[in-house]
Amino acid sequence: MTITITAFERSPDGGKGLARDTRVRWALEEVRQPYEVRLVSFRAMKEPAHLALHPFGQIPTYEEGDLALFETGAIVFHIAERHPGLLPDDANARARAITWMFAALNTVEPPILELVTAKIFEADKPWCEARLPLVKDRVRSRLNPLAARLGDADWLDGAFSAGDLMMVSVLLRLRPSGLLDEFPTLAAYVARGEARPAYQRAFAAQLAVNAAQPPAG
Amino acid sequence: MTITITAFERSPDGGKGLARDTRVRWALEEVRQPYEVRLVSFRAMKEPAHLALHPFGQIPTYEEGDLALFETGAIVFHIAERHPGLLPDDANARARAITWMFAALNTVEPPILELVTAKIFEADKPWCEARLPLVKDRVRSRLNPLAARLGDADWLDGAFSAGDLMMVSVLLRLRPSGLLDEFPTLAAYVARGEARPAYQRAFAAQLAVNAAQPPAG
Repeated sequence: MTITITAFERSPDGGKGLARDTRVRWALEEVRQPYEVRLVSFRAMKEPAHLALHPFGQIPTYEEGDLALFETGAIVFHIAERHPGLLPDDANARARAITWMFAALNTVEPPILELVTAKIFEADKPWCEARLPLVKDRVRSRLNPLAARLGDADWLDGAFSAGDLMMVSVLLRLRPSGLLDEFPTLAAYVARGEARPAYQRAFAAQLAVNAAQPPAG
Repeated sequence: MTITITAFERSPDGGKGLARDTRVRWALEEVRQPYEVRLVSFRAMKEPAHLALHPFGQIPTYEEGDLALFETGAIVFHIAERHPGLLPDDANARARAITWMFAALNTVEPPILELVTAKIFEADKPWCEARLPLVKDRVRSRLNPLAARLGDADWLDGAFSAGDLMMVSVLLRLRPSGLLDEFPTLAAYVARGEARPAYQRAFAAQLAVNAAQPPAG
């Protein structure tokens, strides 16, 4: 059955790979499943046809036969569950890999999202500059224990898993801030993720959509 | 095998049920699995023994035989996967229920966490009052589409699932702000969750720990 995902017609980041379809593309590349992409404009994202697929009016979505999913974490998990390559066979190791997926999305990403919001959507506010150090410290309060746990290992728990895919994707959003470089072992961890051939193919595919156009406003 | 979870020795909310062990207790009560609770002080939470269980030094954790998990979403999912009652049998319906778990934790909860942070940890900042309306609007931007999708249904997708358990738990954090009352169908949805006997048992159990003591500072 054909897998179809949605992505921005014009990504806000102009192809830097930070839009969330990249996470889904990466997962599909890791398990070597072909997929089609339907591009969605900002206007279409808020119209009934797309809202029926994604109640929050975002991308990506995932369609395969009569299954329709939204929410990146759920889509990556669905792919990881159906195809070998992203979750260990051992039951306990599998549960721990899933734990890292949730940790990436619910413990590490929220303060990173707050930093993105503070820098982009509150850039014109009088408090922006004074508040940024607080927000950055909240991000560091997640990166410090994450770096401690990773230690000098390549991945968070044994072999590369969907948990690493998600954590690397979440940490990638930090690169423009310079915060990632404060944690050399985490920066190296992210670089290992980016060096994977599957990530390279996913990145190139999203860039091909966006490279031809200027970033959306 | 005995299931042991961890919870705050003294919850910051003094027993209002907002600490995340309540989510895990609720899941265990829904599937009628007995469990033991080990209480952890704020000091012990940051010590090596607990950090070995939970790298971010938080609660809850979950231990069962030689399996040790952290991260509430992962623990609830593990319980839902192992015992009937929280995920549908049909494969597509199961994937959609998992989608709502991730949506609760990665789409709806982040702006709610930001609101909690703005009200508690930035209460003494000069920008607090001027900034709060912006943060509340970001929460509303999630609640509006969520209410639209729920419509007049009892639960998000058919029967009650782990997706509802997580979404209700996330929305509960909003009650003190008054924001939930702006969305009567969501307030009623949360009330339906709280009325479930399993939730009642979970709430009573966490209250029994906390009622005897004043809230932590």
